[in-house]
Amino acid sequence: MALINENYLKLQAGYLFPEIGRRVNDFIAANPDKKVIKMGIGDVTQPLVPSVVKAFHEGVEEMAKGETFKGYGPEQGYAFLREAIAKHSYQDKGVDISAGEIFISDGSKCDTGNIQEIFGNDNKIAICDPVYPVYADTTVMSGKTGICQANGYYEGIVYMPCTKENGFIPELPTETPDLIFLCYPNNPTGTVASKEELKKWVDYAIEKNAIILYDAAYEAFIQDDSIPRSIYEIEGAKKVAIEFRSFSKTAGFTGTRCAFTVVPDDLVAYDKAGKAHPVKPLWNRRHSTKFNGVSYPVQKAAAAIYTEEGKKEVSEVIAYYMENASIMKESLANAGYEVFGGENAPYIWVKTKNGMKSWEFFDKVLTEANVVGTPGSGFGPSGEGYFRFSAFADRENVLEAMDRIKNMN
Amino acid sequence: MALINENYLKLQAGYLFPEIGRRVNDFIAANPDKKVIKMGIGDVTQPLVPSVVKAFHEGVEEMAKGETFKGYGPEQGYAFLREAIAKHSYQDKGVDISAGEIFISDGSKCDTGNIQEIFGNDNKIAICDPVYPVYADTTVMSGKTGICQANGYYEGIVYMPCTKENGFIPELPTETPDLIFLCYPNNPTGTVASKEELKKWVDYAIEKNAIILYDAAYEAFIQDDSIPRSIYEIEGAKKVAIEFRSFSKTAGFTGTRCAFTVVPDDLVAYDKAGKAHPVKPLWNRRHSTKFNGVSYPVQKAAAAIYTEEGKKEVSEVIAYYMENASIMKESLANAGYEVFGGENAPYIWVKTKNGMKSWEFFDKVLTEANVVGTPGSGFGPSGEGYFRFSAFADRENVLEAMDRIKNMN
Repeated sequence: MALINENYLKLQAGYLFPEIGRRVNDFIAANPDKKVIKMGIGDVTQPLVPSVVKAFHEGVEEMAKGETFKGYGPEQGYAFLREAIAKHSYQDKGVDISAGEIFISDGSKCDTGNIQEIFGNDNKIAICDPVYPVYADTTVMSGKTGICQANGYYEGIVYMPCTKENGFIPELPTETPDLIFLCYPNNPTGTVASKEELKKWVDYAIEKNAIILYDAAYEAFIQDDSIPRSIYEIEGAKKVAIEFRSFSKTAGFTGTRCAFTVVPDDLVAYDKAGKAHPVKPLWNRRHSTKFNGVSYPVQKAAAAIYTEEGKKEVSEVIAYYMENASIMKESLANAGYEVFGGENAPYIWVKTKNGMKSWEFFDKVLTEANVVGTPGSGFGPSGEGYFRFSAFADRENVLEAMDRIKNMN
Repeated sequence: MALINENYLKLQAGYLFPEIGRRVNDFIAANPDKKVIKMGIGDVTQPLVPSVVKAFHEGVEEMAKGETFKGYGPEQGYAFLREAIAKHSYQDKGVDISAGEIFISDGSKCDTGNIQEIFGNDNKIAICDPVYPVYADTTVMSGKTGICQANGYYEGIVYMPCTKENGFIPELPTETPDLIFLCYPNNPTGTVASKEELKKWVDYAIEKNAIILYDAAYEAFIQDDSIPRSIYEIEGAKKVAIEFRSFSKTAGFTGTRCAFTVVPDDLVAYDKAGKAHPVKPLWNRRHSTKFNGVSYPVQKAAAAIYTEEGKKEVSEVIAYYMENASIMKESLANAGYEVFGGENAPYIWVKTKNGMKSWEFFDKVLTEANVVGTPGSGFGPSGEGYFRFSAFADRENVLEAMDRIKNMN
């Protein structure tokens, strides 16, 4: 008798974004005359930059000719892309990461979701609250948790609340975790971690033989040079951290699909007898057994980001979004909201007024201003009473949305 | 302390293809003057067809303009592709599968590797021997097996030997499995399953409440109209089978990456209390939590296969490979080998002479004929003494390779 993975039954119904989609679609169906402005899902709106488009076309053209056609590529990604990443994203910035430690994939959602497969089910997982829902959901699917309790926490996960009171920076947990998900610049709060803050975590992981799963998908939005862009800027991090990066937000690849994960040679995890094992061969095995590489033209397009022209074009798009963030931050503050993030991250984290619940605020903003944001509680119980606006939008829409919100009751 | 998934330690070192790559590279390094012809990995050699290239470019161009730019698409794939598949691959052939039952992915390796995640670890898995190594490897990774025994079998997997003696068609297993991997046209033996044969399996799965995981990646190579192209041609199959299909071999997408999996609405699996649960919502949840859709231009390219022009162009490429298969089959038979497959599949399965071991024959063919094939034992213990030649090659190379093999000692 074929048995289901019963852990799936523990998952709370409705992943956040489908629920948002449902409510928005219902509203549009009932109000076909209203122009709804979407600032909910953190999805880019600006087209691929010219250098990327050019390389993408060239990649397609290579696939059209027998002499240049590419069949299966290396599962880990083509050397040209791994080397460009190692050089431009790490070595040129003084961070010693080599091409062999970089695994190209089709998305950070996949990598952060799949990474737990190489670790045993006896690990205790720590996550921030609120945070990107994939960390908790995939922990549940893997069987490391009990049910979801009345407080919104799954049994067995170590939650680290991040609220206004602690500046959205979690304290070291009292219960020792084995795998710690951190995300900076943070989704959804827009918080960044200072060098000192990250050092605290790296030292903690070293002391506990824990591993940090560091999601740096929004690294490109850091404006302040004193903020680390990679966890490997912290001494000792290569022994205890895996870093996830993505081209999705950096270069508008949400629909094009390319990302990478860094698993340093020095990183070890343990068997139950306490023997250390390098982690990279495990991820390499997983990656080459259950994945077959990213589309060649897409890898070629991604590599174009590292040309001089590509860098310049991509930085202009990022500046555009960050100008949005700046406008939103100011407008929302002027409208009387307490506002966080938005300075080194494309997300504005807003405290609702008078303790209004997140979904109530969602409905209010949707029906009164016809603007879609993301309810903070969708990212975890400590997000209740907060709301996320994404700066990934067209300027015109940003201005109109802010105007409408200002005039809400 | 971060603990590894110790099941990975049970995996036999060296996935088959890396080991082939290592031996070939060593040979080339030692013999730089020799022209090595590769017929090992089943990788296509013909470029993408013109209709696909055209649509691929158009997709890239859409990503270059604000008005047509696409961010995140549906994780399950765009409706235009799901609907084209449902119509052309199923409904037009009298098979009642709807777009909503189709999940677009970046490869069948990923899907056949990931599918076990939605099923519990108490399931007993049955696989053919020999077969595509991913089924067994991912079963081991998931923790359903013991160690690999001296006979090459992992403890806990139900192996179904396929040899010349049973026509490479497995018997129903004596120990009842819960999940049964079947692959037709078969990789590596090139065998196909008749309607009667598949009906036997569907009836068996219905009787046992088991699920068939049906890998039909080579469906496009079937020449004989009496052979089913889909397991859903068999009555009742929608209740007990998941079907995997791929554009990799069908349309030369091994480096472009697109595939799909059919999970019918009627398919159920059970919780431990014996309650039936529909399987589709579980796969949908997995797919939308750990995957983020296939690159938009790639989906657009894939859909072009279903245009009149695309169908014609793709069928010509398939005819080219099948002509290769036919040439190879005849040449190898003339050279005194017992030869199987190659009539409805792009693989020729050869029995070595005088009981020579598969890897010994590999080395012989490599060093004497400078041709790369795949040792049958790499697909499982019952593949020992066999050898796989792939018809995915340029005609000129096929003719030269056959000529050289004919002249081997």
